[in-house]
Amino acid sequence: MHVTSSVNGVDLDRLSATIDNVSAEPALARFQFRAGNHWVDGGYSRTTIKDFYGAGHEDTTRTEAFTVDTDEPPVLLGENRAPNTVEYVLHALAACLSGTIVYHAAARGIALDGLETTIHGDLDVQGFLGLDSNVRPGYEQIRVTINVTGDFDDDQFAELTSLTRYSPVRDIISNPVPVAIDVTRA
Amino acid sequence: MHVTSSVNGVDLDRLSATIDNVSAEPALARFQFRAGNHWVDGGYSRTTIKDFYGAGHEDTTRTEAFTVDTDEPPVLLGENRAPNTVEYVLHALAACLSGTIVYHAAARGIALDGLETTIHGDLDVQGFLGLDSNVRPGYEQIRVTINVTGDFDDDQFAELTSLTRYSPVRDIISNPVPVAIDVTRA
Repeated sequence: MHVTSSVNGVDLDRLSATIDNVSAEPALARFQFRAGNHWVDGGYSRTTIKDFYGAGHEDTTRTEAFTVDTDEPPVLLGENRAPNTVEYVLHALAACLSGTIVYHAAARGIALDGLETTIHGDLDVQGFLGLDSNVRPGYEQIRVTINVTGDFDDDQFAELTSLTRYSPVRDIISNPVPVAIDVTRA
Repeated sequence: MHVTSSVNGVDLDRLSATIDNVSAEPALARFQFRAGNHWVDGGYSRTTIKDFYGAGHEDTTRTEAFTVDTDEPPVLLGENRAPNTVEYVLHALAACLSGTIVYHAAARGIALDGLETTIHGDLDVQGFLGLDSNVRPGYEQIRVTINVTGDFDDDQFAELTSLTRYSPVRDIISNPVPVAIDVTRA
C-alpha cells in the first residue's frame, strides 16, 4: 500500500524526488519562463503566459494560455480595468513569500493552518514622469507582514521566519537582476 | 469648444495637468500601493488588490477588488491553476515597459500603431530548493524584445528606445529595493 504524505498541500514524496533528481543532475534545475505582452491602449495591455522550459524539456502541461491584463487607475490616466504593473510586483512578492514558506515548512514537517500576507510599497511618480532625476522610478521601499498560524513551537516559528531567504521574487526585488532590452521596429 | 487631444490612448490634457500639478506640489507624486495575499494550498494562493494612496488622498475609484491567483505547474508540485510568481514578474516588467514607452511617446507626440513585447527569464531552482548556496533563488538574467510600429522617423525611433529608463518595474528589477519582512504568529 502506498500512502501519499502531504503537508501544507505539498506532496512530500514528489518534493523529495525532485530534490533527489536535481541533486543527481543539477542541469534539471534550469528553467526558462516566458511571457508575451500585447499593447491595447494607453496603459492597458494583455499578457499571455503558457510555455516554459524546465526539468530538461519544454513543458506541455498547459493546454491553454493564461491571460493577465494590466491597466492604470484614473489618477494615472487609465480606467481601472485591471491592477497596474507595480501592484503586480507586490502580488508576485507576497505570493512568492507565501509559497516559499509553505514548501520549505512542508519539507521540515511543519504544518501550517493559515498564512496571510499584507504588503505595501512606496513610490514617488516624479521618477516615472522624469521630473526629478534624483527620484528613482521604482519602489523606494516595500514592507511585508506575514501572519502564520499552526501547531508549531517557538523553535519552529523561528525557523519559519528565516525561510523567506529562499524566495525567488524576494531575491529579484532585493538584488539586481541583469535586464537586456532590445527595441526593434517592424 | 473643447477638443480632447489623445495620443496612443493617453489624454494629453490630463497628462499635462498631472505634470503641472506634480511640478507645483511634489508631495502629490507620493503613492502607496498595497495588496493582501491569502494562502490556499501548496503554491496556490489568492491576492486581493483594491485601495491605494496617491495624489494626496486615499483613492476610492475602485468599487470592487481585483483578485489575482497564483499556482505552480505540476513539475513544481502545483496544478496549473494560474501563472506562477516569477511568471508574474515577467508580466509586470513587460507590461510596464509597454506602458512607459506609450505614455512617454504620447508626451512627445509620437504616435504608435502597435507595441508587442516578448520576455524570457532564466532561473535555476537549486537556489529556491536551497541545494547550492552559490545559486541565487531569483532570475539570473531577463531578456526583453519590444517591437514597435508606427509612423515615426529614425530620430524618434532612437528616442523611443531610450524611454524604458523611466519604467518603474525595470528599476525595481534592475536595482535593489529595500524589502522589510515581519513574520508574526496569531
